[in-house]
Amino acid sequence: MTFFHRPSISIGNMNKHAIYHRPRSSYAYFDSPGTVFILFRSGREDIEAVEIFHFDKYIHRETLKNTKMEKFIDDELFSYYRIRLTPPYKRLAYYFKLTGKDGEIFYYDETGFCKDDKHCERCAFQMPYINDADVIRVPQWAKSAVFYHIFPDSFARSEPFFEGAPAWGTEPHVRDHRGGNLRGMIDNFSHIKELGVNALYLCPLFASGSAHRYNTSDYKTIDPRLGTMDDFKEFLDLCHKNSVRVLLDAVFNHTCDTFPAFKDIVEKGEASKYKDWYFIRSFPVQVDGVYRYDRFAFTSHMPKLNTANREVKEYLLDVVEFWTKTGIDGWRLDVANEVDLGFWRDFRKKVKSVNSEVLIIGEIWNDSTPYLDGDMMDSVMNYPFAASCSAFFLSGEIDLETFKNQISTRLTAYPYPMTYAMYNLFGSHDTARWFTEAKGDIKRITLSIVFQFCFPGMPAIYYGDETGMEGENAILARRCMNFTPGETGQKLLALYKKLIALRKNSRALCEGDFEWSENSSGLLSFTRRAGDEEIRVDINNSNKAEPIEPMGYRIYRKKTQDISWSVVS
Amino acid sequence: MTFFHRPSISIGNMNKHAIYHRPRSSYAYFDSPGTVFILFRSGREDIEAVEIFHFDKYIHRETLKNTKMEKFIDDELFSYYRIRLTPPYKRLAYYFKLTGKDGEIFYYDETGFCKDDKHCERCAFQMPYINDADVIRVPQWAKSAVFYHIFPDSFARSEPFFEGAPAWGTEPHVRDHRGGNLRGMIDNFSHIKELGVNALYLCPLFASGSAHRYNTSDYKTIDPRLGTMDDFKEFLDLCHKNSVRVLLDAVFNHTCDTFPAFKDIVEKGEASKYKDWYFIRSFPVQVDGVYRYDRFAFTSHMPKLNTANREVKEYLLDVVEFWTKTGIDGWRLDVANEVDLGFWRDFRKKVKSVNSEVLIIGEIWNDSTPYLDGDMMDSVMNYPFAASCSAFFLSGEIDLETFKNQISTRLTAYPYPMTYAMYNLFGSHDTARWFTEAKGDIKRITLSIVFQFCFPGMPAIYYGDETGMEGENAILARRCMNFTPGETGQKLLALYKKLIALRKNSRALCEGDFEWSENSSGLLSFTRRAGDEEIRVDINNSNKAEPIEPMGYRIYRKKTQDISWSVVS
Repeated sequence: MTFFHRPSISIGNMNKHAIYHRPRSSYAYFDSPGTVFILFRSGREDIEAVEIFHFDKYIHRETLKNTKMEKFIDDELFSYYRIRLTPPYKRLAYYFKLTGKDGEIFYYDETGFCKDDKHCERCAFQMPYINDADVIRVPQWAKSAVFYHIFPDSFARSEPFFEGAPAWGTEPHVRDHRGGNLRGMIDNFSHIKELGVNALYLCPLFASGSAHRYNTSDYKTIDPRLGTMDDFKEFLDLCHKNSVRVLLDAVFNHTCDTFPAFKDIVEKGEASKYKDWYFIRSFPVQVDGVYRYDRFAFTSHMPKLNTANREVKEYLLDVVEFWTKTGIDGWRLDVANEVDLGFWRDFRKKVKSVNSEVLIIGEIWNDSTPYLDGDMMDSVMNYPFAASCSAFFLSGEIDLETFKNQISTRLTAYPYPMTYAMYNLFGSHDTARWFTEAKGDIKRITLSIVFQFCFPGMPAIYYGDETGMEGENAILARRCMNFTPGETGQKLLALYKKLIALRKNSRALCEGDFEWSENSSGLLSFTRRAGDEEIRVDINNSNKAEPIEPMGYRIYRKKTQDISWSVVS
Repeated sequence: MTFFHRPSISIGNMNKHAIYHRPRSSYAYFDSPGTVFILFRSGREDIEAVEIFHFDKYIHRETLKNTKMEKFIDDELFSYYRIRLTPPYKRLAYYFKLTGKDGEIFYYDETGFCKDDKHCERCAFQMPYINDADVIRVPQWAKSAVFYHIFPDSFARSEPFFEGAPAWGTEPHVRDHRGGNLRGMIDNFSHIKELGVNALYLCPLFASGSAHRYNTSDYKTIDPRLGTMDDFKEFLDLCHKNSVRVLLDAVFNHTCDTFPAFKDIVEKGEASKYKDWYFIRSFPVQVDGVYRYDRFAFTSHMPKLNTANREVKEYLLDVVEFWTKTGIDGWRLDVANEVDLGFWRDFRKKVKSVNSEVLIIGEIWNDSTPYLDGDMMDSVMNYPFAASCSAFFLSGEIDLETFKNQISTRLTAYPYPMTYAMYNLFGSHDTARWFTEAKGDIKRITLSIVFQFCFPGMPAIYYGDETGMEGENAILARRCMNFTPGETGQKLLALYKKLIALRKNSRALCEGDFEWSENSSGLLSFTRRAGDEEIRVDINNSNKAEPIEPMGYRIYRKKTQDISWSVVS
């Protein structure tokens, strides 16, 4: 038979609308050379079992096998099943056999549902050939990383600092400087070392007129207020000697209005050879409130770069190569989802050609599926994770069930190598501080952080959160670092140190599988397993006194040879 | 508020599991500079109305608007709604307002469902910025193309042909030659011209030992059995002078085992400098049944190329540039889904940099969503379309309702600019012939072809189908062309000529919107509309005598100024 087809059938009680699977997506991808990871979705607890029938499309009969899929997790609406397969000839054709709660059996392939599988060979889903180049690759070190995020203007300041800097500790404003610098970071490195983090994300260091430095005026120069190239190299070297990785901020969506190319346009108008470097709507160009050119938000001093323009791309990729070759360990991509996709694909190629272990984290606040396909970013700033944790642990706006559902959705959203490299933050220079969100309630903060550090992905600490700093909004979250916390801050600092040490010494926490533990006691409870180690976490995010104290938690560990759990925290 | 969150709610009778939308996918893309196309899915006829609330994310209040979405189409399980929006600042944030059949109102955003929209601003779907480079672009000419597919070995033969060629007309075998050549194609161009097609897809022309030439031995040489480079240029020129476009076959998944790089590996083993050009599993390499290297299917004389290897890629892209610069109009990508995705992205860049109007059609037999994102292919060979048409028109295995559902699914599967550029074929050198599938029933064939030519996408004729040739399988579908059909063939030829002329003269058929016409008479009925023209098609794919004759059809046309329909066929 040449052509396949599929008559429609009615399917008992199964929720057909809920069934979802798609090859070459977060539902089917190559997670390592030779291996296909498959995810399958049904209505929540709507089916009894899923088997996958898999074969080589060119020799169906000889290779056909069926394997039961493992139930992975449930979220509000759906159940997810998973399996990893290693086809002998690197080609995988497959379809699913669904057993309903009522015992009825259906097959599901690319064209829909059927009662038997006689046409499924022709209608199978296809992962046509496992090209190594299509394998999802995330730097190995990411899953064990604990991040510390520094806003350089406010972290620390040492002599010599620039003339006109205000007294250290005055309240921050949008563009005014506190005057923090690299020498300050070098001099206060012991804080970072003692905390125990192993990766830093630094907000922009390149020349810029503002305190946040997100409007770059020179991409190849360290902002003089921060120090010199030598200072930068000294700091990078210091970090590397202490096994701390360093990520820089890639602010390529826009420049400052004082960036030479833009200035040239303002001066020469349409005659400027840089006129296609930006999105100019009308000439002559002036920097004011009139929308004569596209920009970041409506900020006239942040004109948006045309990153698809060949010259712009060459220029920026040269910048990328220059800094990547200094030995940095990664890039955080500012306003990542407003830049054209082709730019990020070329950016990735450039970065990974210098060093494949350089990590790429996108600043994307919402669902990031389109950017986590393996050809652009390795990770994103996981704001949806922060949102769920805030609503559950801090404000109590969502209940345990809803929280688990939202977190489960997060665990199924992206290819799992990226889930294990998510930048799981609880705040940044763009948000209010976590401490303030929690109204300073240390118990609530504690439970949230325990969850953050025991969850798959890279826990990230925004400088000063570890000493209980407050910040009512994004600007006030940029206060000068407090290195000498009071009692509450000291408790937090001790907690962070303990959790960082625990995580760094636990393969289960870094790379272990995640599973909710069912219990009837109202605890948030889950396990992580890897190799011979198992970690179990119980969190009592309530005022009920059982089975552990109100707003208390326990972390247990067990090795294969152990008879019982040990309490580790 | 810094963090968004969403408590879960229960939703009346609406089928929550059926709701689907995802930005930067076939559900939301840029269809032209500045414009976003949005598709929304619900359970079939499960909701009363969908409104989209849309705004600029940086100035929510000032820009918030709500617009009713148009119901597009239903398939078996789902209803689809659509809209095009042109946001003033090229940024689109949006969420949906759903009105249930029972009048209940819900909002739907990236985090799920809610009863009011007070958090929807923060939880909105995002099409963050319309970069021109991310706009889906398909060559303008594609939607008006009518394709003719030539298997060069069997189409026509003129003197001088190669020594040892069999008598013209003998039955074909897999690798044996009939001996067709370019001179034959030139001499018989009048047939193509009179038929009226405006595009040709030619199976491989490059040097190869086999009749099908899918195992290339030299990518820069016209196979001597076909003629010379001069013959090729003469043919291309002849086509272009007659406004007929020409597509070549890009066979880059594998080479012939006689390709120099592979021969070198066979000779030198691991010492060969080409050893990474293929996927060698064990040295020494011999060409036999043992699976020592990856290959197309299990064909030992078709070793699979490592298209991600830098040298291989450079070599092949040089080939691509060479041929694209001869002035060809497109490429058909052989075994497109087994080649790594990065290769096709670079292939596209190379081809489009030579000529952005070069069309790229992938050979992919099943759902091709991952390849039709704008960064790889413009189109694919639409075998699922052929399958549905075969099951409805030829075998009658599916009923009218099922056929309409399957076709509707096709219309929602890909970004619509690609739907209008689908290569809608009814057979190829890889299938049995349509005439044979139809058991020679000219009425059935007629209705299927009427549908094919009145449907969005590029109708494609496999050489000889227009004269009623038979072919029981892929090999026998490669018989020598019959230019002198009998009575049935003549009828078919006349039908094709009529439909080609009709389509070429109808903007509605080429680029018009598609809509099923509801009717209670059991007809397959739909309209196409563009500009001032409307085409209506009624097909009676049954033996019922009303309202048009059994197995009959009517095509009507109306211009804006017309009072009533004219029958055009």
